[in-house]
Amino acid sequence: MNWWTIDETHDPARKSWVESADGHRDFPVQNLAFGVFSMAETPGTRIGVAIGDRILDLGALAAARLIPLNLTEICSDASMARLLAIPAQDRRALRHALSDLLCDEARRPVIEPMLHPVEACMLHLPTRIGDYTDFYVGIHHANNIGRQFRPDNPLLPNYKHVPIGYHGRASSIRPSGVPVVRPTGQRKPPEADAPIFAPTARLDYELEMGVWIGSGNDLGEPVPITDAAQHIAGFCLLNDWSARDVQGWEYQPLGPFLSKNFHSTISPWVVTPEALAPFRAAQPPRPEGDPQPLPYLSDADDQAHGALGVMLQVHLTTQAMRKAGLPPHRLSHGPATNMYWTVNQMVAHHASNGCNLTPGDLLGTGTISAPEREGFGSLMELSQGGKSPLTLASGETRTFLEDGDEISITATAAADGFVSIGFGECRARILPAR
Amino acid sequence: MNWWTIDETHDPARKSWVESADGHRDFPVQNLAFGVFSMAETPGTRIGVAIGDRILDLGALAAARLIPLNLTEICSDASMARLLAIPAQDRRALRHALSDLLCDEARRPVIEPMLHPVEACMLHLPTRIGDYTDFYVGIHHANNIGRQFRPDNPLLPNYKHVPIGYHGRASSIRPSGVPVVRPTGQRKPPEADAPIFAPTARLDYELEMGVWIGSGNDLGEPVPITDAAQHIAGFCLLNDWSARDVQGWEYQPLGPFLSKNFHSTISPWVVTPEALAPFRAAQPPRPEGDPQPLPYLSDADDQAHGALGVMLQVHLTTQAMRKAGLPPHRLSHGPATNMYWTVNQMVAHHASNGCNLTPGDLLGTGTISAPEREGFGSLMELSQGGKSPLTLASGETRTFLEDGDEISITATAAADGFVSIGFGECRARILPAR
Repeated sequence: MNWWTIDETHDPARKSWVESADGHRDFPVQNLAFGVFSMAETPGTRIGVAIGDRILDLGALAAARLIPLNLTEICSDASMARLLAIPAQDRRALRHALSDLLCDEARRPVIEPMLHPVEACMLHLPTRIGDYTDFYVGIHHANNIGRQFRPDNPLLPNYKHVPIGYHGRASSIRPSGVPVVRPTGQRKPPEADAPIFAPTARLDYELEMGVWIGSGNDLGEPVPITDAAQHIAGFCLLNDWSARDVQGWEYQPLGPFLSKNFHSTISPWVVTPEALAPFRAAQPPRPEGDPQPLPYLSDADDQAHGALGVMLQVHLTTQAMRKAGLPPHRLSHGPATNMYWTVNQMVAHHASNGCNLTPGDLLGTGTISAPEREGFGSLMELSQGGKSPLTLASGETRTFLEDGDEISITATAAADGFVSIGFGECRARILPAR
Repeated sequence: MNWWTIDETHDPARKSWVESADGHRDFPVQNLAFGVFSMAETPGTRIGVAIGDRILDLGALAAARLIPLNLTEICSDASMARLLAIPAQDRRALRHALSDLLCDEARRPVIEPMLHPVEACMLHLPTRIGDYTDFYVGIHHANNIGRQFRPDNPLLPNYKHVPIGYHGRASSIRPSGVPVVRPTGQRKPPEADAPIFAPTARLDYELEMGVWIGSGNDLGEPVPITDAAQHIAGFCLLNDWSARDVQGWEYQPLGPFLSKNFHSTISPWVVTPEALAPFRAAQPPRPEGDPQPLPYLSDADDQAHGALGVMLQVHLTTQAMRKAGLPPHRLSHGPATNMYWTVNQMVAHHASNGCNLTPGDLLGTGTISAPEREGFGSLMELSQGGKSPLTLASGETRTFLEDGDEISITATAAADGFVSIGFGECRARILPAR
């Protein structure tokens, strides 16, 4: 069994007796993503499994002793702190049990009362996030942004050798739906002699994927690239909101700080490595002349299966569009294979100095962009640093986000011969500055 | 009552019946620092109070109902997560109760059994650290380091306007005494065409102070500078170990990452704002021509009392020195007033964009250095980037740290008419790379 092994749970012929799961964009029975939810009528939070437009209460299932017995206690927790850390083989056993229960019509009378309509549930963060690290593996983003600052030299010399990353703020990560207050910050308008302290005028989104760390490593003990996948518990979508004017003024020499840490939004569902197994792809070969990764980042299996066959898209809905009943405007769409480094390389690099990853850490990929405009992953790229306003379907224009704007990120993992799956939504609306 | 108010607990005439407290370098009864400790013979961790060479078991005191009743439960916790977050008035009440109990000879028979020799205890982190942010407020460090990279322009244009900071790694912070494994990392020797992956050859320490966040703020709600002190629960010493060669190769454009996150060491005792009240000092006036802080960072009280009258020092002991029985070699000493921004300004800036600070967050000041060599806060400065080896008292030389070297940071808060207090020790030894 490998992290890319396909088994009967991926069989496209499998259908759940939960009718809404059949053909569901995100949550057919081939997905079985985990999340933490609450309901108005009962206290506390519980772990649930997404199935169609329903959430299956994992705690109730555990209480009924319908899952592998060694996981009963962990599945009854109020958060996924412990569930994230279980070994892949246990997660796989749980997946098989869930798949069987949700496909076997005979189980329906027992299981159906444990299902809740997703509209009646509130989704929370899967766990308290330990440390949050954001990488920069979207090479086209690095190129597009770098070109604005260093036209002759967009990519710095280290980029193709080091999976560049930095530490972000864990406390301000929120699940989809929580509004974002426009941050106030220090910034220096180009024409001004001195900085001002004012609401950001260049509020942007960044299209990313998130990686949940499952089992950790001890401080001082690196994770070999061949073991990296064993430390990954799942994936989500991530919007790394950014105040570009604050960023431009503050980021030297230690990197982005207040321009990024006021809020980050994630999709609340943890899509497991097992669910994504059919959508694993070979890492695209490096362009001629690029250096090969150093040995601690090299693994043939990772090269053969480490990329993610996931198509990402971003939609914008403005206040005026909502009022007029217009559909969201698609800002961009592009594949996650536009990553120069794989998630396994991110993990192995992060721990290569002995830094201890811990269960519930979150890694961001960094903005996933594309060489061509339709795949640009931020307004900074789409509007060329604010110089070229976009015209929306509503006739409005945008360089950066305005109050009332709502950004939604969605994604689909698809492969020939398999039922495609999604991640749920990563969505939030901008509130005016306080 | 203000955060700089002096009261009878600071009276130099106060003496504890714990004999070792009288004249103790760090922990006379005027200090009363909190820590989390364990003992071999009993399970679990408990909160303790440092008094001379003893630790007073706060849980035992709470069980005996000898502290303010509203704090009984919190003081019985296994960590300081909740104790850090109590309001200053409650912390002050607890301080008064502890001071009275430890000074009143009549209480000795009851309290003495709750004291443990510090040698018999293990000290732990006060709590699980939420987010760790490292600032860069040591202007002389910024100058000294900046000069090595940009001789004509050592300080970047934002430095005197923005309290520069960045997010660090919380999971790899360890209390004093835990050895540091020399990290391996990617670095590019100046003469090489390509980077190598090898143990760091430029392992350094950084002399810093740490600030524990007590009560937090809600996401989206800034902390006014006038309220900043209310969010600070205490202070410690911090060594931000750094791999300079890794740092030089990886840090652009997003800042230091693996060069810093392999290990940070803190002194385990939380020295409260109340204990430090007598040692508050006016923030040194900004040099002629420097910009004044923007209004969100300006507060007359903070200017009058926001600096810390603390003298810091760093000692190095090599393996050879230990074998020969030589005393530690003092590398540097200098005052914490060499900070360009106060800790209140750090807090207000951090939350100015609505970023939510949470109880148990740790802020580092960044390296506190001095204009003159005797106060340089890192080997990078002392050895001029490795160009000028130091000669130690043992006759050995150092540019950067070697395996077996041990760095110890200590500090003394002193002011005329008051009993000086300390922070305990922030110490760790270098182990060879794995």
